[in-house]
Amino acid sequence: MAVTVSRKAHFNAAHRLYNKEWSDAKNKEVFGLCNNPNYHGHNYDLIVSLTGEVDVETGFVYDMKLLKEIICEKVEKNLDHKNLNLDVPYFKEINPTAENIVIFIWNILRTEFPKHLKLEVRLYETPRNFVTYSA
Amino acid sequence: MAVTVSRKAHFNAAHRLYNKEWSDAKNKEVFGLCNNPNYHGHNYDLIVSLTGEVDVETGFVYDMKLLKEIICEKVEKNLDHKNLNLDVPYFKEINPTAENIVIFIWNILRTEFPKHLKLEVRLYETPRNFVTYSA
Amino acid sequence: MAVTVSRKAHFNAAHRLYNKEWSDAKNKEVFGLCNNPNYHGHNYDLIVSLTGEVDVETGFVYDMKLLKEIICEKVEKNLDHKNLNLDVPYFKEINPTAENIVIFIWNILRTEFPKHLKLEVRLYETPRNFVTYSA
Amino acid sequence: MAVTVSRKAHFNAAHRLYNKEWSDAKNKEVFGLCNNPNYHGHNYDLIVSLTGEVDVETGFVYDMKLLKEIICEKVEKNLDHKNLNLDVPYFKEINPTAENIVIFIWNILRTEFPKHLKLEVRLYETPRNFVTYSA
Amino acid sequence: MAVTVSRKAHFNAAHRLYNKEWSDAKNKEVFGLCNNPNYHGHNYDLIVSLTGEVDVETGFVYDMKLLKEIICEKVEKNLDHKNLNLDVPYFKEINPTAENIVIFIWNILRTEFPKHLKLEVRLYETPRNFVTYSA
Amino acid sequence: MAVTVSRKAHFNAAHRLYNKEWSDAKNKEVFGLCNNPNYHGHNYDLIVSLTGEVDVETGFVYDMKLLKEIICEKVEKNLDHKNLNLDVPYFKEINPTAENIVIFIWNILRTEFPKHLKLEVRLYETPRNFVTYSA
Repeated sequence: MAVTVSRKAHFNAAHRLYNKEWSDAKNKEVFGLCNNPNYHGHNYDLIVSLTGEVDVETGFVYDMKLLKEIICEKVEKNLDHKNLNLDVPYFKEINPTAENIVIFIWNILRTEFPKHLKLEVRLYETPRNFVTYSA
Repeated sequence: MAVTVSRKAHFNAAHRLYNKEWSDAKNKEVFGLCNNPNYHGHNYDLIVSLTGEVDVETGFVYDMKLLKEIICEKVEKNLDHKNLNLDVPYFKEINPTAENIVIFIWNILRTEFPKHLKLEVRLYETPRNFVTYSA
Repeated sequence: MAVTVSRKAHFNAAHRLYNKEWSDAKNKEVFGLCNNPNYHGHNYDLIVSLTGEVDVETGFVYDMKLLKEIICEKVEKNLDHKNLNLDVPYFKEINPTAENIVIFIWNILRTEFPKHLKLEVRLYETPRNFVTYSA
Repeated sequence: MAVTVSRKAHFNAAHRLYNKEWSDAKNKEVFGLCNNPNYHGHNYDLIVSLTGEVDVETGFVYDMKLLKEIICEKVEKNLDHKNLNLDVPYFKEINPTAENIVIFIWNILRTEFPKHLKLEVRLYETPRNFVTYSA
Repeated sequence: MAVTVSRKAHFNAAHRLYNKEWSDAKNKEVFGLCNNPNYHGHNYDLIVSLTGEVDVETGFVYDMKLLKEIICEKVEKNLDHKNLNLDVPYFKEINPTAENIVIFIWNILRTEFPKHLKLEVRLYETPRNFVTYSA
Repeated sequence: MAVTVSRKAHFNAAHRLYNKEWSDAKNKEVFGLCNNPNYHGHNYDLIVSLTGEVDVETGFVYDMKLLKEIICEKVEKNLDHKNLNLDVPYFKEINPTAENIVIFIWNILRTEFPKHLKLEVRLYETPRNFVTYSA
């Protein structure tokens, strides 16, 4: 009787796509406009989902208020109104594509929830481009 | 060649979160604002999904008009403009969390569709909080 | 060079439509399902708009952070997770239709902002029903 | 470490539901308003998802710009501002239900992407009716 | 103390843009893809707004249930699942652009509501193209 | 018989709020997180509206295809995937608040359309914060 509970959050950030091993020409060719050295940005929307049994006493899989607070404390505070390339140490080495950001967030959140709960994270870079990760 | 067909519906209802075995203090501590004894409410959005083979003659997995009517008759008529705790007998004993409501709806709908069709129900309590159930 | 700045907020509440001067039969006839004596509820979305000149130093008509905080303090705290009929004194006498709620909110907010700023409030009772007030 | 990348696209088209083996009466009974011989239409929304490993050099599962271009070239150009029954040869024989359209699009796109990437297509006929296909 | 009440509705229809006084070449040049002789279609969203005083007894500017029914009876029944050019006599002479459709709907609805209520109609042809009319 | 036609567009950009006449401390105090020296960013949504008479021959107030192209050419090409402070000369002197960006866009577009058409521009910085300008 596993139910999935999902919570939507959001943060606004700047980034650029860039591989420091490559020449400027190759970076521009592969990443196009997203390679602008002065950065561009997005309103990122985030959906965090936990799957597990419903607790008989509370009727909760996981307390949504607590889920909201953990996302705020562990994700939003570190990414909101930030430059991902410059302000987030992890992305000094790793290219902040939507794929890499969703894995980064998933890894942070995985340590916050009991292991018996399955965790999935979906990240909207724009309303038209989004990525989903679950391991 | 299984395709999933999904239909969105909605209903407006009042509820409060409450465990009658607990003291008022514990209820307030666990459920916070959602424990308000005078109730609060939501515009619930519902997505019902059926997965199965496409019928060669109709091109349908399941007739969407019929799906719409069954959701209306079996779910909306019983929950729309209701107080879940007071007007729906099932929730006199069971705490009407989103998790418990989605299981309740799933169980009602499961008896309405052929067994070879997989059924999933997603319930949005708000645009930011939602739950998904499939068994 | 007047610009309008708008901020979206939301609250969840229970209510019933009811005129205490009328018989139960007339209440039911006029208000239909919305007259359920046990209440029903909504996720209300609110858009507060202020129109005025852009300040040359800040580039703001009004600081959005402050606008957000005032809506939270003066509107959300008093209406969120409440029963409008029972928990909000104003609606003990006044029927909490969307029209009356939007006027109530507008009157509260009008005293919070400088008089030279035009104030408009829009209230979504559902994504399909909404009201707008400006005086 | 498989991540799913998704891209939203859209096209506007006319269609009618119709089985040429059936009498007009049976077509009308089964397909109702959707059987209007003069056609009706929709703004179709499409979500194409690819699942696979993240490339270490690019940080991409698949280049979203390229994904966008392929959807445009192979799907939108053939379906946008078209009459599905009259302008798309495939639907001269096959009833253009949402289910059959999503399979049609999936089959077109399947040949465009490397086999190791899992492909899923979701098609919204309206915001309330949608179908999902993955094989 | 005038409040505006708004109600959202929708209908699905086929159409083509076409001026019968013009050559095919000129029609194609001016209307582009929208001139496809086999038609294309849209999910039209409609927002009908009435502005007036709030009735003291009901708390209503206008009963939303009644507004919903009138839109259904007078607009949706005549346009939903129709071919605007072929099934709606008015558009045999008039080009069914969004502009002309919104004026058509406004004129139909104007006769349904008391004259002291201001009427505005907004029509979304797609989520990105919409028109608004009020006279 | 004036109708308003509206077209939605979007662009993604980085910016920071900053008044170069002020100390860092005052900038931080007034602009808070939006003052991050490394920038943050948004998916900006733009709605451009033109109001005028409907042309009898075309049924258009203004050709939406042309409107779309002008917004793309004059606004999106200059702002999409850019850093507003660094890449757009106008914002080297002017603080790129939503208010100032909407006036900037309005001034660019005003020269593109006939004077008898009223022009309004709405800019969403996030789904919750937006500004509207018309002169």
